[in-house]
Amino acid sequence: MSKAVKTEETKFFHTGSAAEPFTFASGVQLPGITVAYETYGKLNAAKSNAILLFHALSGSQHAAGVTTDVPGTDGRWTEDCHNGWWDLFVGPDKALDTKRYFIICANYLGGCYGSSGPASINPATGKPYGSDFPEVRTSDVVKSQLALLDSLGIKQLHAVIGASVGGLLAINLATLHPERVKLVVPIASGCRTTVLTRLTLFEQVLAIENDPHFRGGNFYDGAAPEYGLALARMISHKTFVHLDAIERRARQDVKNGGDTLSWYRVQHNVESYMLHQGKKFVKRFDANTYLRIADMWLRYDPLRDAGVQTYPELFARSAAAGQHYLVFSIDSDFCFYPEEQAELVSHLEKAEVSNMHITVHSDKGHDSFLLEPQLYTPHLSFLLEGRWNKGSLARPVPEVE
Amino acid sequence: MSKAVKTEETKFFHTGSAAEPFTFASGVQLPGITVAYETYGKLNAAKSNAILLFHALSGSQHAAGVTTDVPGTDGRWTEDCHNGWWDLFVGPDKALDTKRYFIICANYLGGCYGSSGPASINPATGKPYGSDFPEVRTSDVVKSQLALLDSLGIKQLHAVIGASVGGLLAINLATLHPERVKLVVPIASGCRTTVLTRLTLFEQVLAIENDPHFRGGNFYDGAAPEYGLALARMISHKTFVHLDAIERRARQDVKNGGDTLSWYRVQHNVESYMLHQGKKFVKRFDANTYLRIADMWLRYDPLRDAGVQTYPELFARSAAAGQHYLVFSIDSDFCFYPEEQAELVSHLEKAEVSNMHITVHSDKGHDSFLLEPQLYTPHLSFLLEGRWNKGSLARPVPEVE
Repeated sequence: MSKAVKTEETKFFHTGSAAEPFTFASGVQLPGITVAYETYGKLNAAKSNAILLFHALSGSQHAAGVTTDVPGTDGRWTEDCHNGWWDLFVGPDKALDTKRYFIICANYLGGCYGSSGPASINPATGKPYGSDFPEVRTSDVVKSQLALLDSLGIKQLHAVIGASVGGLLAINLATLHPERVKLVVPIASGCRTTVLTRLTLFEQVLAIENDPHFRGGNFYDGAAPEYGLALARMISHKTFVHLDAIERRARQDVKNGGDTLSWYRVQHNVESYMLHQGKKFVKRFDANTYLRIADMWLRYDPLRDAGVQTYPELFARSAAAGQHYLVFSIDSDFCFYPEEQAELVSHLEKAEVSNMHITVHSDKGHDSFLLEPQLYTPHLSFLLEGRWNKGSLARPVPEVE
Repeated sequence: MSKAVKTEETKFFHTGSAAEPFTFASGVQLPGITVAYETYGKLNAAKSNAILLFHALSGSQHAAGVTTDVPGTDGRWTEDCHNGWWDLFVGPDKALDTKRYFIICANYLGGCYGSSGPASINPATGKPYGSDFPEVRTSDVVKSQLALLDSLGIKQLHAVIGASVGGLLAINLATLHPERVKLVVPIASGCRTTVLTRLTLFEQVLAIENDPHFRGGNFYDGAAPEYGLALARMISHKTFVHLDAIERRARQDVKNGGDTLSWYRVQHNVESYMLHQGKKFVKRFDANTYLRIADMWLRYDPLRDAGVQTYPELFARSAAAGQHYLVFSIDSDFCFYPEEQAELVSHLEKAEVSNMHITVHSDKGHDSFLLEPQLYTPHLSFLLEGRWNKGSLARPVPEVE
């Protein structure tokens, strides 16, 4: 293994002003927003080697290396956040090779790791926005990150990559602004919110809403809705990690605890394990941000955003721009089921978009995309080097400088 | 369709006394317990035509016909309870033919439809038991219902039948007391609590525990933990009804409602539909009973109860008693997955227990066992008439009287 990139620092990009406010898709305006981001590698002179990486639900801008603290995260930057979430994929000679590419990863608008979100201070009141922070759609996140790219002088991305919810964002960006990117990589993702996902997300929304400390989202002057957020995390965690892995980890990592709820007695390892996951998570995440991302996911609609009626129409925009998609499925995924990527690919085919669909076989479930770089790196490397079609497989690509 | 059996009345069986208390598997004793039950058909002179039917998680003793009220259910016997939950299967000429058999269905111990449970009055305090009601295991439910059979003079059942959690109870009874039954019918069930089921149940436990009105189970003097119970119901409902059916029903039955939580705005039909299911359910069910059944399911262990180490050992008891199992799978079931019945059958085979395994194909998911009698009735009828092996297929069976 090559060594990790050096210690990283979060940078902050500010956009908007009282005179030129940032307008959300809902029409609501804020006088200004902040986008927290990290970058890895060097932007070349032509500004043509940039890759935008979208994180997943509970991720952050910190994709690679080590970041021990981020200003403005109010203690939420716990030890669990220190190591980059995609460090196995981003670095010298890795899939997203920092010797060749300039990789940008930014915290979602509405987030809790430095980008403007419900826990940010509302300049109008001097207090956190709470429930007053606007509804966030994926197109708002895309807009905020394109503004960041503009500020860096990047007109067209080499690639946009996202796994899980990040994949939804990658497709949203690629179809809303087809001129901004050539290569699109949705990993273990889809192109719509299925009924099962809707139900699972709605349960998570209710788990937080039911917490007496939630108070409509205005809880920053008191206790946080930790029980609700922990339950939400447990509901989603079940879909991220393969059940066999949960069972294995529960046996190895967690002692059969004496956890006591008010009536129920926890007796089984997997129950203690899930409680532990939930409790760990609430230390590092904000319940309002969680709700906003769930809400954004529930309302995900790239057709509405692009003003079209059908998926073939949507992807006709990709075809016209000459985009190429690399779609990854994980056979054991039950967060985004393989059927969802098959549906995406079928839409791409109908719209005659250049694409490649690869299924990796793993016993790790959805989380495979975090843990098993060996399953993804060959195709990612070839794609990014431009060696993804028959005629280009052996084409050498120079490193930057 | 043949007409429904006539209007039914719940009967109450009392057992135990201060001198001879009812002892739970946990060792805790109550001076007496009540079992609410209904019967259909007539017990023959030899008392050899009795069938015990176990209901599922949210069911009751009221399997067939119409029952408009049950004393002691404190308004929980809502309109949703009036029609018997298995009326399509129980009645003259139906699968459980009331012209031939005497069918008994009893509310679980710990239940809220007339059997002793957390909402029952504790004679020691004059107030509801609440959290003081003992932990209930499946073997306690079995014990309470065998006491009822004893009181009716029934030494051996013609059959025991249960779907879903009811199937777990059927197996528990058949292996704990092999001499009490010859034919065993688990429908869409299993023989252990899988990791996925455990996680899903644990989420439901936490949904109720997190409700501020739960107060450890001692809520009868105030508001009930309705939000928690509704969320628990929604989490389980998702596994009972096929997702396509949820989508269909949501489109047909429920208007796109203006349901408003404190922050989240419900916009999609399936969200309104699920909220509606949750709200309807809390009117008819007690949160403490729900928790006790979830707990019973989480702790289900027929090996422990029978004092054996392995499933082949467990089912050796069935083989020795000459039992025959009819195991039904539903191909679209994702509450008890088909793999679970396959596992059960593999144990039965190893133990050389006579068995037949039938998979029905349905687009309704787990709930098929409530809705599609045509898929189950032929095999149930032949089984109950003793026409289940090659040599007996044409054997005529007389009706009772």
